[in-house]
Amino acid sequence: VSDPGAAVHADVATREQAAALDANDPLREFRELFELPPDVIYLDGNSLGPLPRSTRDRLRELVEGEWGTRLIRGWDEGWIDLPVTVGDQIGGLLGAGPGQTVMGDSTSVCFYKLASAALELRPGRSEIVTDVDNFPTDRYVLEGIAQQRGLEIVWAQFDRTRGPVADEVAALVGERTALVSFSHVSYRSAFVADMAAVTRAAHEAGALMLWDLSHSVGSVPVALDADGADLAVGCTYKYLNGGPGAPAFMYVRRELLPEVGQPIWGWLGRRDPFEMAPGYESAADARRLLSGTPPVLGLAAVQQGAGIVSRAGIDRIREKGIALTELAIAIVDSRLADFGVSVASPREASCRGAHVAITHPDARALCAGLIERGVIVDFRGPDVIRLGLSPLVTRYVDVWDALEVLRALLAGS
Amino acid sequence: VSDPGAAVHADVATREQAAALDANDPLREFRELFELPPDVIYLDGNSLGPLPRSTRDRLRELVEGEWGTRLIRGWDEGWIDLPVTVGDQIGGLLGAGPGQTVMGDSTSVCFYKLASAALELRPGRSEIVTDVDNFPTDRYVLEGIAQQRGLEIVWAQFDRTRGPVADEVAALVGERTALVSFSHVSYRSAFVADMAAVTRAAHEAGALMLWDLSHSVGSVPVALDADGADLAVGCTYKYLNGGPGAPAFMYVRRELLPEVGQPIWGWLGRRDPFEMAPGYESAADARRLLSGTPPVLGLAAVQQGAGIVSRAGIDRIREKGIALTELAIAIVDSRLADFGVSVASPREASCRGAHVAITHPDARALCAGLIERGVIVDFRGPDVIRLGLSPLVTRYVDVWDALEVLRALLAGS
Repeated sequence: VSDPGAAVHADVATREQAAALDANDPLREFRELFELPPDVIYLDGNSLGPLPRSTRDRLRELVEGEWGTRLIRGWDEGWIDLPVTVGDQIGGLLGAGPGQTVMGDSTSVCFYKLASAALELRPGRSEIVTDVDNFPTDRYVLEGIAQQRGLEIVWAQFDRTRGPVADEVAALVGERTALVSFSHVSYRSAFVADMAAVTRAAHEAGALMLWDLSHSVGSVPVALDADGADLAVGCTYKYLNGGPGAPAFMYVRRELLPEVGQPIWGWLGRRDPFEMAPGYESAADARRLLSGTPPVLGLAAVQQGAGIVSRAGIDRIREKGIALTELAIAIVDSRLADFGVSVASPREASCRGAHVAITHPDARALCAGLIERGVIVDFRGPDVIRLGLSPLVTRYVDVWDALEVLRALLAGS
Repeated sequence: VSDPGAAVHADVATREQAAALDANDPLREFRELFELPPDVIYLDGNSLGPLPRSTRDRLRELVEGEWGTRLIRGWDEGWIDLPVTVGDQIGGLLGAGPGQTVMGDSTSVCFYKLASAALELRPGRSEIVTDVDNFPTDRYVLEGIAQQRGLEIVWAQFDRTRGPVADEVAALVGERTALVSFSHVSYRSAFVADMAAVTRAAHEAGALMLWDLSHSVGSVPVALDADGADLAVGCTYKYLNGGPGAPAFMYVRRELLPEVGQPIWGWLGRRDPFEMAPGYESAADARRLLSGTPPVLGLAAVQQGAGIVSRAGIDRIREKGIALTELAIAIVDSRLADFGVSVASPREASCRGAHVAITHPDARALCAGLIERGVIVDFRGPDVIRLGLSPLVTRYVDVWDALEVLRALLAGS
């Protein structure tokens, strides 16, 4: 992977130089598609993406036009297919062919379903491999499943500024391994795992591989089909801008689809749900992953956000993500290192997503100070300030300005 | 239970008499709180309730004001508590004390969680009792759980126009019964089960009782605490008007709360989720039933709908529900019986919810004809037309007019 953005930041020593990068940004018009409050620098789009204007309009139309006037007829007029149509739309952003991706419930529920599905496909194997720095809900859900099924979790511990690396994974898996599950992009360090290599390591042990793409989708290229991933889930309210609590997606590799099951046999996962017939029989297609009535408002919002990402193109998004994070790292190195701030994300652009973790012993207080001054960032204990540089809405001057506010805080001025 | 509405319909032989009932309806102003398209008679509020105007406004404010301008700060400014605050609000409509009801994912997922929770509390017992006419998703979810755990389902078969009756339930339960689960109001016949008596029958066998309140909440009084219910779930897009795919609620009896678990150990069910610490430990309170990030848009909508029900008062809603269904039955008997239409809902108002099932051999074609003529009803195979008479929005003249359209269809005119 080349580092297309690595050169752009090199000479940025003033705000004007950052502004010049914005002037030449091929994605600069996309920012206009979002509502952004004028008084904040928003560096938390990796946690909750901002509101697209088209989503505002679509939600009004959905609520007032469809629910308000079509009422129950809305189900036949498109709503019932949203899990599949939006799923395919997102699959298209992830290198997944049609028919393999559907929209479900929360990420936690989707993750539970697919992890359970994997274990059913590997009976007799007793171990699940994940890592101690995986996103909490993934760790907790796997703990619950392991306890309920009498399985054991093998906790990998990778370098904290990195994450799952294929050769270390290979050393942890074996004939007892049923399932390997990692985040593709670390929520903390932004480390991007090598999906193909890690998946291969899992497969060589005969295990299935479940990826969490919550911090990947809409920020870095993903090639689920090409990289041989078995299963994947991901969140849509981060870089897909689907809104607070928007529903998650589930992906299943085509070859696994006929045999994959899931534990929550709700009616919408059944063949011909509206027959309301006796006896559950899985739908033949990816709808078999569904359970209950789909959350239409959230799905309509995701549809808009994913559409914007699709129009911008993941390669351009990636290029800008690299450039923004390179700039942030360069400024930290040149202007903040003297104050005890250091970079806790990978320095190689090829294995770093669209956010940057920086550390400082007073990170908690500094985050509070930044937010008070209108720079919205995340604190991640014990000492991480997370700067989400969502490429569609973050300007180079935002990076400059935010880090100048941090510099002023550190300088006590 | 008295039949307060039983008298009002007796003399209705003309549309003017129906209109007179509307003029005296103490709830008539509530209809103005909803968006209702002028060209339809909507008798499907038991499937998808119409849009409250306040919900339209609240969703605009939420999307444009909160998500649009507060962004991630919305979580600290109320969103994160919505599962609990809206849960308590709904609990208040169901005779549940505070702290026992939370909002979860879809009804299917909530049902799965609570059924699983019950089985964990009754280890060593091998049977689940439910009925063949229970709502499909409940049946399917229980089948899935039974298969995964090696349990057996005991399928009760009650009179189709009725539903679970305590003495018949008592004959089916025993020392092998872990869980008994029924719908409180039948989605088909509208039969209202005697919650106290059926729960007692389950308890006498040492089983736990899980009620599905999807067709009850907002339409008939429920007394969860007083009737000794252990667990309950229900849907919010029917009589609570929460919008398409709105999230469901879960109730747990206070005494069970400290010991109840659930299988999907997502981060929001953990004590101090934002610590992101190692190891899952259940929240001490009802949040332990939660899993993933809550669907904020749907929750905000439910909050509005439940607020309207609360202001109308369940006793007045019940009174009008009885009066509307009595009127429908009287008209069917007097004006449609000659065309082969008969009533498939209980005739005793005390055990009939807010919809009426009528049967005709050509029900499918008749439903299509009604919908074509702007009378929106449900078909339920093989021969049921379901008339949902949602008390807050349905007028007595709507019942009259809808059944006159049916009469014209049957008369071939």
